[in-house]
Amino acid sequence: MTQTRSTGKSSGAKNSQADFPDSKVALFGPDEPLQLDSGVVLSPFQIAYQDYGTLNEDKSNAILICHALTGDQHVANTHPVTGKPGWWDILVGPGKIIDTERYYVICSNVLGGCLGSTGPASKNPKTGKPYALDFPVITIGDMVRAQAMLVEKLGIKTLFCVVGGSMGGMQVLQWAAAYKEKVFSSVILATGARHSAQNIAFDEIGRQAVMADPNWLGGRYLEAGKRPTKGLAVARMTAHITYLSEAALHRKFGRNLQNRDQITFGFDADFQIESYLRHQGMTFVERFDANSYLYLTRAMDYFDLQAEYGGHLADAFRGSRGRFFVASFSSDWLFTTEQCRTFVHALNAAGARVSFVEIKTDKGHDAFLLDEPVMFSAIHSFLTAAAEQRGLTA
Amino acid sequence: MTQTRSTGKSSGAKNSQADFPDSKVALFGPDEPLQLDSGVVLSPFQIAYQDYGTLNEDKSNAILICHALTGDQHVANTHPVTGKPGWWDILVGPGKIIDTERYYVICSNVLGGCLGSTGPASKNPKTGKPYALDFPVITIGDMVRAQAMLVEKLGIKTLFCVVGGSMGGMQVLQWAAAYKEKVFSSVILATGARHSAQNIAFDEIGRQAVMADPNWLGGRYLEAGKRPTKGLAVARMTAHITYLSEAALHRKFGRNLQNRDQITFGFDADFQIESYLRHQGMTFVERFDANSYLYLTRAMDYFDLQAEYGGHLADAFRGSRGRFFVASFSSDWLFTTEQCRTFVHALNAAGARVSFVEIKTDKGHDAFLLDEPVMFSAIHSFLTAAAEQRGLTA
Repeated sequence: MTQTRSTGKSSGAKNSQADFPDSKVALFGPDEPLQLDSGVVLSPFQIAYQDYGTLNEDKSNAILICHALTGDQHVANTHPVTGKPGWWDILVGPGKIIDTERYYVICSNVLGGCLGSTGPASKNPKTGKPYALDFPVITIGDMVRAQAMLVEKLGIKTLFCVVGGSMGGMQVLQWAAAYKEKVFSSVILATGARHSAQNIAFDEIGRQAVMADPNWLGGRYLEAGKRPTKGLAVARMTAHITYLSEAALHRKFGRNLQNRDQITFGFDADFQIESYLRHQGMTFVERFDANSYLYLTRAMDYFDLQAEYGGHLADAFRGSRGRFFVASFSSDWLFTTEQCRTFVHALNAAGARVSFVEIKTDKGHDAFLLDEPVMFSAIHSFLTAAAEQRGLTA
Repeated sequence: MTQTRSTGKSSGAKNSQADFPDSKVALFGPDEPLQLDSGVVLSPFQIAYQDYGTLNEDKSNAILICHALTGDQHVANTHPVTGKPGWWDILVGPGKIIDTERYYVICSNVLGGCLGSTGPASKNPKTGKPYALDFPVITIGDMVRAQAMLVEKLGIKTLFCVVGGSMGGMQVLQWAAAYKEKVFSSVILATGARHSAQNIAFDEIGRQAVMADPNWLGGRYLEAGKRPTKGLAVARMTAHITYLSEAALHRKFGRNLQNRDQITFGFDADFQIESYLRHQGMTFVERFDANSYLYLTRAMDYFDLQAEYGGHLADAFRGSRGRFFVASFSSDWLFTTEQCRTFVHALNAAGARVSFVEIKTDKGHDAFLLDEPVMFSAIHSFLTAAAEQRGLTA
């Protein structure tokens, strides 16, 4: 069974997004199982995706965007749950750097996500109930394998470009390693070829916070009509600190007080940074599934391209004929310039064509999602040159 | 009513430490109220403390050690709850850098703490039940005011030295500002004259984690015979990451696996860093009160010596005739060298005598508690010189 379904805008209710998203959906039936790194075979499954622009006649203008941990496929359209603009609206759209009048742009919800691709909130066909922790633990490799199946289903043999930052950047690296013949160029932002001990530590805090919430119920909260919102909010707040630099926090909030200039001698949010974090926590839980958070952080923890290639990272990229653009951000302490440099060196050692820039900014890890003119112009130059090499007419 | 009580070792049960600690206790009755910065008057109250060595005849050899957030008065003796050595056993004791054969060393549990000084776990005399959130919100200034009352009760007019790191360092700064005539010398490690936005953010995560625990019960868990251990463990785990550097985490744990060399494709602790953090969380809740954690982090958030002195930090130290030794640690990202430098500059501007050293280490914030030979020899030289100036015979 192979089909692609578009659900249109009919299923707007928040909770239905896991199985019936406001996105196109590629269904992979029993004849198209997904072999996972854990050894489990996942079947059937589905991948939800958004697309923008038009695939050209020789199918050479497709760009795949890979989203980060808490992102989703709604890269350049109004989000069906939050009503906010797409998360990379600033970069992707008609006439923008990733120009949807020139390129055919795809963004799919990752496997394990909660906006339409099969994940822990999806209905387990064996039980008729949400998978919860019966969903198999997945890897970045599994996410990319599912994306490759989607791309094939769309009839695209070679992607003009794969683009992503953070967990999205991990996916781009995985594409470069596992499907080097299918990728013409790669844009890799603010990521690493493996998660550091500190990154794993922060992920573990998030998971422990979720699991400590009594409404988590061993993962079976959806059936009980509950949600571990407090735990997930704490997880989000913790992660959010790692997305910002100390300098950005100081510039945006400093020690500014929330109400007038008096501390209250209490535990309400006295400081603006406190109410900002609480707001981040509260809005996140409206659009994200707690179990998905567990699975996706676990996939990032497990990511280690070097280990996957016998301890030699360069071997992951050996034989690559692609073009690579890599950017790190000077104040990013989640994925440091040093971490980026490690895989840039490996790409160099493998003989790949790589441009690398460390962008000076005080915005921290989140910089890759923000208005960073140097990043924009660098990506624009890189894509323009690659498009010429690819024979794409402007 | 003024008396000093020694409870000896008779009350070893964990839960009694809040009111009946295994320490000496100074009681401050209705005639000795504590005026808090919030405007509340706390009375009666008590301060639990340990002392080591002998006060000399002219009472000029007293060193006050101020403990950090999760420390306590058991600086150099076996801990009554954990059975472990004192937290600064490496530095304090007979023949050690802070030589208890030469100096009379005092360490008191901070106001708001949970090992015998009045805090949220103490019995509220008005209700006969634990204070919980009826305990007034306190400041670093309040802690130091209570210490000053203790020191006075012990008959000491001038402390030879006040020593502390992290939250303890904040207290030393407060002593230098509020009681400059009572302090001959100061040792200030790994701290800041105010909490940064990032520091407040991490504290807020910890508090939210505690308050999200259903066993917190609005703070009234002790009466219910419950304890918010899961929330407090998450708080501790989060804080613990900030005590270590990325490099230290990498060196100690890297991506090492807990069991053999296989990942389990699950949510158990696969990585050593995960089980280390879980262990940190679990052992902490055995010895610490969750409400105390809220109050002490709040006190740190509120600390802002510059604001207290009208925006001019140097004014805090104006007129100081003391000697200061300040150390920061190069890989400390909770209290950076930059934060230390800020108050060192202010001390300089106020004409104080200051030695400042940034110690190169990859051990992060926790370095001040560890075997750091450069720190040890610097403190030793400083104390020896100060002792000579003070006329203390070796």
